[in-house]
Amino acid sequence: MNGRAGRHPQADPVHAGAARADRAGAHTAGADVAGPPAPGIFGSRWSCAPPHARDLGPQAGLPRGFRAAGVACGIKPSGNLDLGVLVCDDDAPASAARFTASGTAAAPVLLCRERCRLDALRAVLANSGCANAATGARGLDDAAKTQGAAALALALDPAEVALASTGAISHHLPVEAMLKGILQACSRLSAHGDESFQRAIQTTDRAEKRANLELTLPSGMVRLSAQCKGAGMISPRFGTMLCFVETDAALRPETAELLLGVCAKRSFERISVDGQLSTNDAAILMCSGASGVAIAPESEDELRFGEALDALLRALAIMMVADGEGARRIARVIVRGGNERNAEAAARAVANSPLVKAALHGGDPNWGRMAQAVGAALPGTAPLALDIAIEGIQVCASGAAVPYEEQGLRQAVAGAEIEIELGLPGEGAETEVYFSDLSHEYVTVNAEYTT
Amino acid sequence: MNGRAGRHPQADPVHAGAARADRAGAHTAGADVAGPPAPGIFGSRWSCAPPHARDLGPQAGLPRGFRAAGVACGIKPSGNLDLGVLVCDDDAPASAARFTASGTAAAPVLLCRERCRLDALRAVLANSGCANAATGARGLDDAAKTQGAAALALALDPAEVALASTGAISHHLPVEAMLKGILQACSRLSAHGDESFQRAIQTTDRAEKRANLELTLPSGMVRLSAQCKGAGMISPRFGTMLCFVETDAALRPETAELLLGVCAKRSFERISVDGQLSTNDAAILMCSGASGVAIAPESEDELRFGEALDALLRALAIMMVADGEGARRIARVIVRGGNERNAEAAARAVANSPLVKAALHGGDPNWGRMAQAVGAALPGTAPLALDIAIEGIQVCASGAAVPYEEQGLRQAVAGAEIEIELGLPGEGAETEVYFSDLSHEYVTVNAEYTT
Repeated sequence: MNGRAGRHPQADPVHAGAARADRAGAHTAGADVAGPPAPGIFGSRWSCAPPHARDLGPQAGLPRGFRAAGVACGIKPSGNLDLGVLVCDDDAPASAARFTASGTAAAPVLLCRERCRLDALRAVLANSGCANAATGARGLDDAAKTQGAAALALALDPAEVALASTGAISHHLPVEAMLKGILQACSRLSAHGDESFQRAIQTTDRAEKRANLELTLPSGMVRLSAQCKGAGMISPRFGTMLCFVETDAALRPETAELLLGVCAKRSFERISVDGQLSTNDAAILMCSGASGVAIAPESEDELRFGEALDALLRALAIMMVADGEGARRIARVIVRGGNERNAEAAARAVANSPLVKAALHGGDPNWGRMAQAVGAALPGTAPLALDIAIEGIQVCASGAAVPYEEQGLRQAVAGAEIEIELGLPGEGAETEVYFSDLSHEYVTVNAEYTT
Repeated sequence: MNGRAGRHPQADPVHAGAARADRAGAHTAGADVAGPPAPGIFGSRWSCAPPHARDLGPQAGLPRGFRAAGVACGIKPSGNLDLGVLVCDDDAPASAARFTASGTAAAPVLLCRERCRLDALRAVLANSGCANAATGARGLDDAAKTQGAAALALALDPAEVALASTGAISHHLPVEAMLKGILQACSRLSAHGDESFQRAIQTTDRAEKRANLELTLPSGMVRLSAQCKGAGMISPRFGTMLCFVETDAALRPETAELLLGVCAKRSFERISVDGQLSTNDAAILMCSGASGVAIAPESEDELRFGEALDALLRALAIMMVADGEGARRIARVIVRGGNERNAEAAARAVANSPLVKAALHGGDPNWGRMAQAVGAALPGTAPLALDIAIEGIQVCASGAAVPYEEQGLRQAVAGAEIEIELGLPGEGAETEVYFSDLSHEYVTVNAEYTT
């Protein structure tokens, strides 16, 4: 049982391509859309598996050398799972981590940065239901207590145990309950614990975001798995929500650092649900080396492993947007031309505009709002020779409306995934941002329930 | 008849203070709120009339030397008023104008900037239902045709006629229909035409934003009136939505420029409905001099006139936020400490956060989202010693939660106007931003109807 199963029948990986083609057909026919668009890890038309990666499905378990478990220790009043432990059994694993750039970063982020050996992590203690943010010195003490307890239970150095929390800001951790939960989780660790671990890190997520891949590299077969959460307060910078990636390949710490950094930039840092950078973003890659396959720097192995990691993180990032709070439709905005700063500002402005997002929700081809958002992001450039195309239909050239077939455009924006291409004067830059719509459900989730 | 009357019974100006006190009482008692909070021009607790200004109410007509009219010429499919003309009958009036900073500024803004004598305007031609934005060279031609027609009908130089448009972006002006409307409006100009002119500039506004004041200056009595529209796509920079201000005082153009600039900075540039800078923002001050009272630079007259203009524009700005699309509650965020750039970034981040705005809508005292928004705006400052108080109740000190009475806080955020005070480390800067909430109605307005 997992959160996604009830909403999206698990796609047969073999037929993922066909499913994509079907959805593209439904899309051009203007079919209405009921929920997030992406069944399966590579379900979006914007994410595809490299030929050397095979999706093993949700039951495959973790890569060799990893165990995990999720338990309910009482942080969430609902009684749902809320505490997870992930451990790497290798003696000398390599790891890498990225954290939020927020000035109000949470205690677990501060503690990880200050005290952990981020290149040699052996375990993660994660919880949902409480972010342990805006909790001051007591928050740091609480985090350190839970870190110490996990280290003790796992016979590790506290510096080898990373912490990650998600949930409501400003509340203190229920340390006593968590200590019991830590003992319980550590007694239940298993290679198939990724499913309960995933559930233990979710908050407002409607669907799980979890993957188990098998990669065929020149030097042998390795596994790559990930568990990920995020639906609101999503606009990562230098990190992301919570995402834990495991492989049994042997990577040097500097290779792990390089690959996680590059791939996070192309995935988690290119998405927005609501433009709200979180206090708790964390992405951690852990490498057990248990496969015996070593990924040498600048080798074909590294290239292929990197391709697969890139595809995986992009797929997870798109799943996060598709599962954005209240999301019905998602879009990709691509900006070409101008310089890097202008292209980034224009893409972010469109992706974070509540007007563009509400129009996306309503299937309203109101591209004037995109022009407005770009103009607002680039003051002093009027008149700006902006080009806009939606689903390949050009609607604006050099800043002015051009004739187009209204009915065709209306059908194009009725699909589940909408592509918006913006052209700025000049050549050079190119960037993209994936974003979700603004719906009544987003307001309901964030106005009517205290979180 | 005006749009506001049905929603807000017109407050008796004499009892405005008492009405404010009543509302403050209701507010601390946690009463629920049905609509925008501000009856009357100085209805908000954050705006008050200077002692030398008297609110004459909506029937007082324009200051001497001004006439106006609004007509329906068929731009709006609803048949509502959509074209307005405002004219100053003085031979040598002074004026000043501010326009949007948008890179995709609309044709009327571009034309005004390039061709108008902004310090000596004698008329305004305004329309709603079509923004004439993203319309390229044809948009400029269309704007010039309507400007020329208005000039001809009024026997003015086209450079003396300012243009202002609001409505959907990307559509072309229906020039033929407008030419008829211009003739009709010019034949109906009257000193009491401010009411129809106001209606002709409104779009999604639920309430009119119009004022008629009488000022007692050392050198004599003068009048000050304004008509203003704006409810969505509101985050002005160096200008505002549409606002037209008239006075029969005699100002030098440089005095008009100085006062409009300073007052716009303290009012229209300090509000946000949705963080979306418009393509069409325009604020125009026109001075007929018909009262015979001259406002000399650096005189007591200038000081008092400036105070009244400041109070008027702030009141209109707050009315715009209160009438923000779907708005139920409004808030003022004040940031003290830090430097000017950080304080501004923090205030804007809170005011434009969909999470903060949804919590405001729900009456949810979720201040963790304010901490998150500030942290996102100030990367690299963690751990940030942030202070937060809501309605005077301190909830966060030096970045950490402090104990407070939950029930009292919950009651405090149930009112119509919520005050949020943020403290950053260090001294010096202080700024404020007024903003509205994020509601289901905002989504409905912007998703379910093509605009």
